Amino acid sequence: MVIIMKKNATEKQVDHVIGWIESVGYRAHPSQGVERTIIGIVGDDRGKAQLKATEHLPGVEKVMAILKPYKLASRESRDGDTIIRVGDLEIGGPEFIVMAGPCSIESEAQLLESAYIARKGGAQVLRGGAYKPRTSPYSFQGMEEEGLKILKKAREKTGLPVVTEVMNTTDVDTVEQYADILQIGARNVQNFALLKKVGQARKPVLLKRGMMCTIEELLMAAEYILAAGNDNVILCERGIRTFETATRNTLDISAVPVLKELTHLPVIVDPSHAAGHWQYVKPLARTAIVAGADGLIVEVHPEPAKAISDGAQSLKPEKFYELMEEMRILSEVMKNRIEVRQ
Amino acid sequence: MVIIMKKNATEKQVDHVIGWIESVGYRAHPSQGVERTIIGIVGDDRGKAQLKATEHLPGVEKVMAILKPYKLASRESRDGDTIIRVGDLEIGGPEFIVMAGPCSIESEAQLLESAYIARKGGAQVLRGGAYKPRTSPYSFQGMEEEGLKILKKAREKTGLPVVTEVMNTTDVDTVEQYADILQIGARNVQNFALLKKVGQARKPVLLKRGMMCTIEELLMAAEYILAAGNDNVILCERGIRTFETATRNTLDISAVPVLKELTHLPVIVDPSHAAGHWQYVKPLARTAIVAGADGLIVEVHPEPAKAISDGAQSLKPEKFYELMEEMRILSEVMKNRIEVRQ
Amino acid sequence: MVIIMKKNATEKQVDHVIGWIESVGYRAHPSQGVERTIIGIVGDDRGKAQLKATEHLPGVEKVMAILKPYKLASRESRDGDTIIRVGDLEIGGPEFIVMAGPCSIESEAQLLESAYIARKGGAQVLRGGAYKPRTSPYSFQGMEEEGLKILKKAREKTGLPVVTEVMNTTDVDTVEQYADILQIGARNVQNFALLKKVGQARKPVLLKRGMMCTIEELLMAAEYILAAGNDNVILCERGIRTFETATRNTLDISAVPVLKELTHLPVIVDPSHAAGHWQYVKPLARTAIVAGADGLIVEVHPEPAKAISDGAQSLKPEKFYELMEEMRILSEVMKNRIEVRQ
Amino acid sequence: MVIIMKKNATEKQVDHVIGWIESVGYRAHPSQGVERTIIGIVGDDRGKAQLKATEHLPGVEKVMAILKPYKLASRESRDGDTIIRVGDLEIGGPEFIVMAGPCSIESEAQLLESAYIARKGGAQVLRGGAYKPRTSPYSFQGMEEEGLKILKKAREKTGLPVVTEVMNTTDVDTVEQYADILQIGARNVQNFALLKKVGQARKPVLLKRGMMCTIEELLMAAEYILAAGNDNVILCERGIRTFETATRNTLDISAVPVLKELTHLPVIVDPSHAAGHWQYVKPLARTAIVAGADGLIVEVHPEPAKAISDGAQSLKPEKFYELMEEMRILSEVMKNRIEVRQ
Repeated sequence: MVIIMKKNATEKQVDHVIGWIESVGYRAHPSQGVERTIIGIVGDDRGKAQLKATEHLPGVEKVMAILKPYKLASRESRDGDTIIRVGDLEIGGPEFIVMAGPCSIESEAQLLESAYIARKGGAQVLRGGAYKPRTSPYSFQGMEEEGLKILKKAREKTGLPVVTEVMNTTDVDTVEQYADILQIGARNVQNFALLKKVGQARKPVLLKRGMMCTIEELLMAAEYILAAGNDNVILCERGIRTFETATRNTLDISAVPVLKELTHLPVIVDPSHAAGHWQYVKPLARTAIVAGADGLIVEVHPEPAKAISDGAQSLKPEKFYELMEEMRILSEVMKNRIEVRQ
Repeated sequence: MVIIMKKNATEKQVDHVIGWIESVGYRAHPSQGVERTIIGIVGDDRGKAQLKATEHLPGVEKVMAILKPYKLASRESRDGDTIIRVGDLEIGGPEFIVMAGPCSIESEAQLLESAYIARKGGAQVLRGGAYKPRTSPYSFQGMEEEGLKILKKAREKTGLPVVTEVMNTTDVDTVEQYADILQIGARNVQNFALLKKVGQARKPVLLKRGMMCTIEELLMAAEYILAAGNDNVILCERGIRTFETATRNTLDISAVPVLKELTHLPVIVDPSHAAGHWQYVKPLARTAIVAGADGLIVEVHPEPAKAISDGAQSLKPEKFYELMEEMRILSEVMKNRIEVRQ
Repeated sequence: MVIIMKKNATEKQVDHVIGWIESVGYRAHPSQGVERTIIGIVGDDRGKAQLKATEHLPGVEKVMAILKPYKLASRESRDGDTIIRVGDLEIGGPEFIVMAGPCSIESEAQLLESAYIARKGGAQVLRGGAYKPRTSPYSFQGMEEEGLKILKKAREKTGLPVVTEVMNTTDVDTVEQYADILQIGARNVQNFALLKKVGQARKPVLLKRGMMCTIEELLMAAEYILAAGNDNVILCERGIRTFETATRNTLDISAVPVLKELTHLPVIVDPSHAAGHWQYVKPLARTAIVAGADGLIVEVHPEPAKAISDGAQSLKPEKFYELMEEMRILSEVMKNRIEVRQ
Repeated sequence: MVIIMKKNATEKQVDHVIGWIESVGYRAHPSQGVERTIIGIVGDDRGKAQLKATEHLPGVEKVMAILKPYKLASRESRDGDTIIRVGDLEIGGPEFIVMAGPCSIESEAQLLESAYIARKGGAQVLRGGAYKPRTSPYSFQGMEEEGLKILKKAREKTGLPVVTEVMNTTDVDTVEQYADILQIGARNVQNFALLKKVGQARKPVLLKRGMMCTIEELLMAAEYILAAGNDNVILCERGIRTFETATRNTLDISAVPVLKELTHLPVIVDPSHAAGHWQYVKPLARTAIVAGADGLIVEVHPEPAKAISDGAQSLKPEKFYELMEEMRILSEVMKNRIEVRQ
């Protein structure tokens, strides 16, 4: 941390701040400028909310953090990229991974049909929600464990591993029995009890960025899971909330290169929730792959106009097949002809 | 809902949309303008995500919601204001209520001292966190049940009812044994499992607006609790996330009159989390009362520079006493000399 | 500025950065922490965009600004508050100032009627737009110089000084002949050519914060005017753009105490543009005065439903009189019973 | 527009609203739902701010706009895409256009060197600022007309057409003498006087989206230029302001497919201002091309660490050449193997 003293701070005030810093176990490193004194705090200041409170000391103008607050998620803590294995599949490796399927599991027929579409298109993972976070208590809340059983059947029939959301600490054990990857939804990105709980699970976690979550906060949410012992975290950019309403959220595509610079964890993109309208899903999927993402999670439905949830942003099968063809073309270009890292 | 057709939509497309609307159980009401046709959907369209998916039908340009999606939280469902009773205290009635105390319970001595300060200042409720949502897994996570016991002791000593946060469905029963009011924090405003659970509790719920949460979404979160059977919900504006960084969050003070217009539930303001710096807490507290809020929740600490969390935004005792004196002055003015309702 | 080196930066890289800093005329002050080296830059680094480009040097992680970039607008440059005189009127002094009138000047009759309403209510300044910034080129663009003449007539009839917007450098001389205060609208807050031009005018300037403008950028915009020689700048908070759509903009009421801490310039609030709906104007006006603002600018119209622009947010005369009565009550309380400064 | 009546609105209130609508020249089309009456307004309601003021009428809950407010910029007004010719160059046609050069013109040597780099890399247009919008009045404000002369010389030497910013109506004629394309900067996107003025120019206009400007407002700004008689407008997405600070702005890449759907005007992307840090410029440039943009405007500098402005986000020559090579690869893929339109 760096403490910036007021322009007219007295020498006595500076000394008092230095004394205070030392009294809580750090070393102070003052530096007198033309206009004002700044005081560096030497020592590992992560997680030390107390230092922020030096704002109460006389003569202090501002306190600024210097260090990144995450450790395990940082590239500084680990060489190379984390590769997450799900059966034979490698997420975060050279292959671009697509997770596809409907927003909600609505019935066995609907999910199986979706699973065959996903496999036919070339997706490597099947998605589908059994527990649904819905803004309205009057909306369909998901098929819950019955849905998980259908998901298991779809995996058996298609061979595709499955990813599904878990919303409550009490459901983690159950979901873990059925799912290959546990998803934490955007609204739970700072549900710390849930993060700790999936941190104890043995299955990989797909962690979605919240719509008001900074990149640093997303990495801190991942840090909760890593610190609890689960090394297998996949980050997912899915749009943030801004003033623009033409799309449901604003896809922060820059988050992909920023995250790839800061962390060794795999990063995927959800163009469906970002767009909110099916016609923008394909172009946004293209941006994900060229920005350097490791994969995609995308909503596809056999008949979107009849979907119980998120129909407007789900792709019809034919549009999904087009998208997959484009991903294959761009994936080959990105692997062979473009050097992603700076 | 209203469906807006494209300018060049054909009659056949309009007919197809009408047929589709009727096939899912609504009545369609087309209206042909100079430039385009719009189709009103008659029937209670709340919670019907399917109608949104008409965007997939040929010729449709946009689908707009008309009805407010909440019912029980709406003034339309209930005459007058909801008044919540906590012992002899009435929240949402003519008296302006102040809930005060430290961010975290750090020790018995610290909480008891804070409780005496709160009572001396004239606060009616004691606040203090036993379970703490912290951005970093390396920060102090709260004293948990031991903290709740200290809180109970403080209530016995001072007679003040207590409000404290619950973060996990599995802790609700425990927290309910100790607390008079259950707090749902900003990060859990769309933790739907938790909302349903506190909806089954017998204690009132203080629901904080999330930093990314619209006023409508806050009312939908309240709707979850009301729909689960708990009528006693207090809403709390605590700042939203914007591009401005001079304050920790941006207090959306307009939310107070907007909420008072839309809902019968009590509305309070948290100036501490909005401001993030102690020196702005007093002026923001003044804005809360004149905007028409029913109360305040404010952080006070015997020695903020030593606080384990949120020290920068906590008031020293003397500043808190000044704040309380100002609240008494303005409360009297608001009761006797200013007509709040339009 | 402070340069933060990467964790693994070599000694040679640190030396290179230090050499570079010295080569552009500053002194470097390195400080070696446990995890990384930070380098303070000593010297007045304002306006030196070049230092930001040290991000290109090997081993550099981040460059952070320390000093506030404004000088003349800062409290550090001047003791006490700036009081702006318009005839007998003092803006920024003990009296709370209200500027009132219609959004647009629509006709002589409409403006005169508005002026009498403003005066009857007790406003000290008449507002009214002759040049109108309208989102649509097809909307009414203002009566221009004819409107200014009507404004002058209204001043003669009522004795109220007038404030009106100027949108183009070529109109500044004309507007200055008619107006007592020149208004810079929110969309022109970073129209630097216009800021320089009004900086040469002899009339005070009312500078509205843009809806995307940070508090620091607002002060930098004021700095343009001050640096060009015009000391009389009134700042105006009028709402910022956020994700919330219940109000037209989000009134950043915290900006009032923040600005009063940072600058000696007067600060007023525009509750009409912030709210966008008339029914929230009165409560927001109350928050302005208790937050410590020096005044208000508010839209009133003899018959809002017939207004050519901003009718939805304009007050009817009777509501305006109520607002003025409330301002008198709260002004007296603020002057006599509440100590605003910390 | 659609007027939504309150739930308890009386028949008399509905009749009064209908009468009012008809009195201002529109036809009303009421539609009685289960819960409330909505009233469609038939007629071209664009630019009719008055209808918004129906919010003042008794019984009215909300007024919602239905029609898009722009005409000339809309695809509805014109078949096919607008192609803008600058000499032999076609912007908006099949070729992907890159405009490259330094942020500011600093000297003849610096600009000429930059121009040769731009041409060597394969850029089709040279950029360079002679009038600079700077947040601080103490920053370098540009070489003004002297800079324009250097720009002209660079065009003569390299054959590249030039684009440069104009900030003030009084400079438009001068800039038009030297530049091939007039740029309107992000901060002037709603400087309506300037938009009208360049609408009268005979050179094409590059219109940058403001950082708090919705897509609809950007199209309305273009509408100002089109309505004034200049058909040649190029739109530019350059990042919007959000809460995320890892990048200077948040590139709204979704704006590209949204704009291509709504308007016939060419759309380009500025990855430099969006990113704010050079290392993210290349990946963002890749996203632009695959999202369907018609081109790019990018900052390149012979020696970024010595740039007077925007050094941190400028590319070194070698990085720029890499970027151009990637653009060629992806351009070929997009032309031959991917079908952009839905």
